[in-house]
Amino acid sequence: MPAPVDHDARRRDVSEAVWRVLAAHGFGGLTLRAVAAEMGCSTGLLTHYFPSKRALVRHALEIADERTRTRARRTPPEEGLPALRAALLDVLCLSPKDVAMNRVWVSSWDRALGDPELGAAQTERYARWRAALRPHAEAAIRLGRLPAVDPDDVVATVAAFAHGLVVQALFDPARFPPERQTALLDAFLSTLANPPES
Amino acid sequence: MPAPVDHDARRRDVSEAVWRVLAAHGFGGLTLRAVAAEMGCSTGLLTHYFPSKRALVRHALEIADERTRTRARRTPPEEGLPALRAALLDVLCLSPKDVAMNRVWVSSWDRALGDPELGAAQTERYARWRAALRPHAEAAIRLGRLPAVDPDDVVATVAAFAHGLVVQALFDPARFPPERQTALLDAFLSTLANPPES
Repeated sequence: MPAPVDHDARRRDVSEAVWRVLAAHGFGGLTLRAVAAEMGCSTGLLTHYFPSKRALVRHALEIADERTRTRARRTPPEEGLPALRAALLDVLCLSPKDVAMNRVWVSSWDRALGDPELGAAQTERYARWRAALRPHAEAAIRLGRLPAVDPDDVVATVAAFAHGLVVQALFDPARFPPERQTALLDAFLSTLANPPES
Repeated sequence: MPAPVDHDARRRDVSEAVWRVLAAHGFGGLTLRAVAAEMGCSTGLLTHYFPSKRALVRHALEIADERTRTRARRTPPEEGLPALRAALLDVLCLSPKDVAMNRVWVSSWDRALGDPELGAAQTERYARWRAALRPHAEAAIRLGRLPAVDPDDVVATVAAFAHGLVVQALFDPARFPPERQTALLDAFLSTLANPPES
């Protein structure tokens, strides 16, 4: 009885093809035709999965969320600043996989800004990310490694820095190789931090 | 002989309509049909100006560049950190006009990531922006207001912070009103700076 297995495998194939189209062409290039070409199938077959462009975009965002949620992360080191650093390193463009992931997310902002429902989802996504960073900021403050400022401001600031660096690195990988991104992050975190001797 | 005037006026009308579509729907919503609806004309008329989707996108980017180049800027205050602050305030989402401008640029990143020619133009745009910020960083270092680090690293860092804050503010204006953006920028710049007494 191979049918259910085939069905799941086909769904995985479709998702893989959607992801490859996204990573290569962004949301602006995400069409049923492009996904069909990537799979070597007819667009007719795909309309079974995606009755509309909107359904395709929504599925693409689900894949991106799923891949973000389940991606390999650095083992959390010591709490506070080192854990914050590790969480920020996790979002920079340090490997080809990171580049593909960030390329997809940055590209999704166009859709999200033009669609209230997708925009609200992106607002929530940002709020969740900042909430995930917050315990590290709180621990760093408690441990005396960051000044006693509002942790919400710390996470907004480090999230801003990390995403702004991601965008620059996507458009200029030669000027922003992984080593430079890491060095910029470390220099940035050390300016935020209290001097070690304090 | 009103013909040449009419022609210019029509071009301006077209550009205005393209801008309004961009500000409302981003590049993902930029179609001949949407521009025609905005102008209350036929798409046929517009094909005279834009023989292809690509021509429309290119014109939209020219408008965005022109509007960015000619927009009102803060009067440059005292050189160094104050001038750097003013230049960064110029890019935050502090007014409805700023929001529209940033919305268009952030939305354009999807197109630019998917098209080598547009991508190269965006790489150059970033390089020009950092080059424009650089004299302020150099002056701040010379005046002892910033530590003697590489000015290229300073401008990459402040550009990252500013753009990352712009994106968060676009998706969450309630959490990032103008006063908070300004306060976050000031706190960020003060962590970069040498203490005033040094």
